[in-house]
Amino acid sequence: MPDKELKLQRAGMPNTRPVMLAIAGDSAAGKTTLTKGLVKALGEDRVTAVCVDDYHRYDRTERKDKPFTPLHPDCNYMDIMAQHLQLLATGQPILKPVYDHSSGELVRPELVEPREYVIIEGLLPLQSKLLRACFDVAVYLDPPEDIRVAWKLARDTSKRGYDEETVRKELERRAPESEEHIQSQKQFADIVVRFAPIPGRDDPDEPLSAELLLRPTIRHPDLSEVLTNSRSHAMHLKMLRDDDGRPVDALHVHGYVPREDVRPLEEAIWEELDLDMPLPEDLGDAGDGQRSEPLAITQLLLLRHMLTAG
Amino acid sequence: MPDKELKLQRAGMPNTRPVMLAIAGDSAAGKTTLTKGLVKALGEDRVTAVCVDDYHRYDRTERKDKPFTPLHPDCNYMDIMAQHLQLLATGQPILKPVYDHSSGELVRPELVEPREYVIIEGLLPLQSKLLRACFDVAVYLDPPEDIRVAWKLARDTSKRGYDEETVRKELERRAPESEEHIQSQKQFADIVVRFAPIPGRDDPDEPLSAELLLRPTIRHPDLSEVLTNSRSHAMHLKMLRDDDGRPVDALHVHGYVPREDVRPLEEAIWEELDLDMPLPEDLGDAGDGQRSEPLAITQLLLLRHMLTAG
Repeated sequence: MPDKELKLQRAGMPNTRPVMLAIAGDSAAGKTTLTKGLVKALGEDRVTAVCVDDYHRYDRTERKDKPFTPLHPDCNYMDIMAQHLQLLATGQPILKPVYDHSSGELVRPELVEPREYVIIEGLLPLQSKLLRACFDVAVYLDPPEDIRVAWKLARDTSKRGYDEETVRKELERRAPESEEHIQSQKQFADIVVRFAPIPGRDDPDEPLSAELLLRPTIRHPDLSEVLTNSRSHAMHLKMLRDDDGRPVDALHVHGYVPREDVRPLEEAIWEELDLDMPLPEDLGDAGDGQRSEPLAITQLLLLRHMLTAG
Repeated sequence: MPDKELKLQRAGMPNTRPVMLAIAGDSAAGKTTLTKGLVKALGEDRVTAVCVDDYHRYDRTERKDKPFTPLHPDCNYMDIMAQHLQLLATGQPILKPVYDHSSGELVRPELVEPREYVIIEGLLPLQSKLLRACFDVAVYLDPPEDIRVAWKLARDTSKRGYDEETVRKELERRAPESEEHIQSQKQFADIVVRFAPIPGRDDPDEPLSAELLLRPTIRHPDLSEVLTNSRSHAMHLKMLRDDDGRPVDALHVHGYVPREDVRPLEEAIWEELDLDMPLPEDLGDAGDGQRSEPLAITQLLLLRHMLTAG
């Protein structure tokens, strides 16, 4: 019986389509830190996180003879990346290539099965129309260049074993391709996140603030009730003109506001989701024991998008 | 003319679907030898040959703790294999896993782009319905077990560096899974090819003959004209009952007939294809300097199917 066959087939294959989130941005822009909090908040058993920087066409040795850096689409299997994201977006598993960042070698691929939520982070996840079509929500991380350089130096000289001069030279070498291929993805994001000091406030020890451009390409939550809250000095919404001249909402989350003043806002945003669980404690973990309430608010808004998408 | 139509169709359609041929069979059944001649005859620039024995889920070390051999579907990424064959069948590239048979390790995957013709050979290409749906023509290689053992011993002790006892033990260990998962694919082939001595003729130096079961699951060429040829003692068509009792045509190609008597038949089959090129010389190359006219005839019939499929 054909319909019975179909039923059996459906029973065997929970063909659910996951909610897909893209987190794009240059090296050391904060993609992994942002992702980690989301994974912990949703639960590892409900999220598949994939880094698309593993789709390198060449290993480190082969790249030496090439006229481009790993930021260039020609240095990556962009077609296969798009194919794999399409498969994940339709609930199918992939055999994902793996690039070993310590040895610079391409190694044994790994099976990746999409769970309820899929987070795709990397340098180029929004680089083509086909890639962009895979996502429910697309984020671009856009820290000011001096802050990104500081983050990259801190990470690459400690965790990746490079010396400062090598990192600076590599940044310089990559700059034109960063502008052409990475930063150009900013225009395709639904949300642009910028962790930065507030202009004019020059205290280097003050925690970074966040500016989130909430573009009308997706429906953003109505924050009016949260923002009329008595502690709304922690963040505010402001209309701006976007890079292309179109009006856009910018949510400013102030880094100088103490945690106890931000926490009620976080609770309020969380409660609106009406989930049967407390506000996840892992939000706002900026690594190395640091906390960032602007990061927590950013993660909360992304969680909200993920939980209500699809 | 079918092949001209095909050419026009291909010229007009950039996203062409390749003709897909499956060659299934147990280890050392002759899959690679059969494939090589087809690739050379069609031209390497027109054929993509893929071995699906690279879809191992475990490397050699990991398999030591497993209760099955590489012949078992559970030892392979069968879903990914089916996914990749579907992608190739619809003209799309894949990033294919690679199993290094000498080291027993899973290594860096490789990009495979489907050309006009795709030949998929291996242990399990017909193992599932989804896999079988990918092929225009499916072949199963079915040599008698004593001949396959001799072929496997010859190859594995020379080219793969094993001793005879190890190979025999491995064959024994694999026998139940071979029956359950490999030989069970025979029923799904359009053509079953059996290279074997003719029963009752006991000369061990006589070249092997071939029996080709031509099942009515695809349309086979009308060989009547070729077979009424004066030199038709080289081969003949005989009606048999198949394993399931259904009538089937069996083409017998006699290994004892000298090359000069078979050659006109090969020419006749080739000419019917009306291609603007001479009969390829590489057909019938059985490896190690040996020639086999039954192999050449088998390859010719498969070429004919490939050139007229689609």
